[in-house]
Amino acid sequence: MSEVFNFSAGPAMMPKAVLQQAQQELLNWQGQGTSVMEVSHRGQYFMALARQSEQDLRQLYQIPDNYKILFLQGGARGQFAAIPMNLIGCRGKNKALYLNSGHWSATAAKEARLFADIDEVSIVNEQLAITQLDFSQVADQYDYVHYCPNETISGVEIFAIPEVGNAVLVADMSSNILSRQIDISRFGIIYAGAQKNLGPAGITLVIIREDLIGKAATTTPTIWNYAVQANADSMINTPPTFAWYLCSLVFKYMLQQGGLSVYEQRNAEKAKRLYDYIDNSKLYRNVVAKANRSTMNVTFVTGNPELDAQFVAEATAAGLQALKGHKVLGGMRASIYNAMPIEGVEALIRFMQQFEQQHS
Amino acid sequence: MSEVFNFSAGPAMMPKAVLQQAQQELLNWQGQGTSVMEVSHRGQYFMALARQSEQDLRQLYQIPDNYKILFLQGGARGQFAAIPMNLIGCRGKNKALYLNSGHWSATAAKEARLFADIDEVSIVNEQLAITQLDFSQVADQYDYVHYCPNETISGVEIFAIPEVGNAVLVADMSSNILSRQIDISRFGIIYAGAQKNLGPAGITLVIIREDLIGKAATTTPTIWNYAVQANADSMINTPPTFAWYLCSLVFKYMLQQGGLSVYEQRNAEKAKRLYDYIDNSKLYRNVVAKANRSTMNVTFVTGNPELDAQFVAEATAAGLQALKGHKVLGGMRASIYNAMPIEGVEALIRFMQQFEQQHS
Repeated sequence: MSEVFNFSAGPAMMPKAVLQQAQQELLNWQGQGTSVMEVSHRGQYFMALARQSEQDLRQLYQIPDNYKILFLQGGARGQFAAIPMNLIGCRGKNKALYLNSGHWSATAAKEARLFADIDEVSIVNEQLAITQLDFSQVADQYDYVHYCPNETISGVEIFAIPEVGNAVLVADMSSNILSRQIDISRFGIIYAGAQKNLGPAGITLVIIREDLIGKAATTTPTIWNYAVQANADSMINTPPTFAWYLCSLVFKYMLQQGGLSVYEQRNAEKAKRLYDYIDNSKLYRNVVAKANRSTMNVTFVTGNPELDAQFVAEATAAGLQALKGHKVLGGMRASIYNAMPIEGVEALIRFMQQFEQQHS
Repeated sequence: MSEVFNFSAGPAMMPKAVLQQAQQELLNWQGQGTSVMEVSHRGQYFMALARQSEQDLRQLYQIPDNYKILFLQGGARGQFAAIPMNLIGCRGKNKALYLNSGHWSATAAKEARLFADIDEVSIVNEQLAITQLDFSQVADQYDYVHYCPNETISGVEIFAIPEVGNAVLVADMSSNILSRQIDISRFGIIYAGAQKNLGPAGITLVIIREDLIGKAATTTPTIWNYAVQANADSMINTPPTFAWYLCSLVFKYMLQQGGLSVYEQRNAEKAKRLYDYIDNSKLYRNVVAKANRSTMNVTFVTGNPELDAQFVAEATAAGLQALKGHKVLGGMRASIYNAMPIEGVEALIRFMQQFEQQHS
């Protein structure tokens, strides 16, 4: 079949070269005559993979030495619970602040309420612009401040890092991790489900400053107790080895491509082309404030739900897959994560042009 | 390279035909031009896979209609926490009984203590024989009784089903699920990490009687709340789609092979040949009581730790992989799950004979 481009919000597109390598060695990994998914996580080969994947990620993302890297299970939704379990009380405040910028940050706050006393503040206005990021005056009363720098559903991205004084800053970066370089040292914890920019669904990355490890409530499930997992190299139980392996291939591939600066530039270019086209179009519009337009998830509507549905159907038939917007918002959404080549964005714009000509 | 046999205790061997199919369609699943791991779990193709996998498992394992099937994250170790969160108080007793038959059942009890008041009773004696299974006289004071029918480390299997009166019976079947037919209706919950008999690491099966759903404590993480997940078809968050897909292929393959009775017979034959050889050998011995010898994990020692190490090294060189016993026990362990063909057991016995001749 002719080439397709997959704009799925997650599980999302993976680098083709990574899938090809995985395919090639699926039944015979490291010349062992077995699949990587069939070997013990405690064997020398998988342990070497785990170590190398950490080194590669450290290099790729410039992660300081005083941060631990954990590979866990349960997705970002699991971490919504694990974060308060591990951090509440870490500064003796017994309270956390959650910044609400959309669906996922709100969902994180809702889950945290099951386990901790939290305050929640909306930081997004009706124009989908972020209204404030300086919490240094109020943050001292909280153990930590949680936010989501990229809201996948609405396509709202927060580019500046919130000011939180002495409180610990925690970020759910599921949908923009490794999309650009950030100053890791500003964060206490960065976490992300893998299925957008890191690898397949089923593995969760946690990057945590060492001094925050060891503060967990006694009622923390062992698999999410950061101290236990850090001490066990993320292997207190059997890790999702095949997902970890695929992440390790993605890290290696990104380094081979030139590292994060290459992706940052490419992602900016992809997003600029798409938003520029939308802004100059008479049919489509994006409703997010320009300063907060996501480089990862580009949302757009025609203003006519029936026409939106027709757009999605015809795009799918033309090999431009998974452009339907999230059910809570409708319209269209093009997720253009790291693995999406510029050619995919170009093909989308060409299709949008044709569709616009036919319907204006 | 010449054929190898992988006796890993988990992650363990998978059916070669399943891996070959996964390899063949890794970059183009269902003719969509994308990998199964790149598509949305809520799309029509993956939803169809999820439904079919449940149907196939239901047929394969004769799961009654009043049981729900969940595919979760976090492994059996995650369920060690989730079980008390969801079940404690389900009969108004606020206490559970844990049967200790070895390492894994003890670990489950230890984790449960973080969340609930439990009693624990040892049911294995020094000869590694199960001493009692009738708890009908004491069970009424408990919400549930938990046990582990196959202890992977020691190779102790419990073939009869405990009597627990009106209490709910919960079983960690990680290492013997789908190895033989059992009467599911005797259980309230059966759960298993996938990485021994079901598929790759990173997905956890929970089979639960419907009337036990909806009893979770308010402090249950949402991804482990059985009511939430049952209502969301195990998709309250992004499931580990590729692992689920591989499980679906395993279920289909097992049905094609003739279903569970074929595996039950084959597993019994594999274990019998190996235990018979060990019992007739002058070099090796298995210390488990005959009535409780595991059909899945066959442990043996020479009685000389140095000779054990030499055995493992030479076996590995001969293509018989991962025979080293668990670090807490030492010696050797041959895990012969469903995917291990009889030829693997025959090759192991031939090697054991040669090694015995050289060292007696």
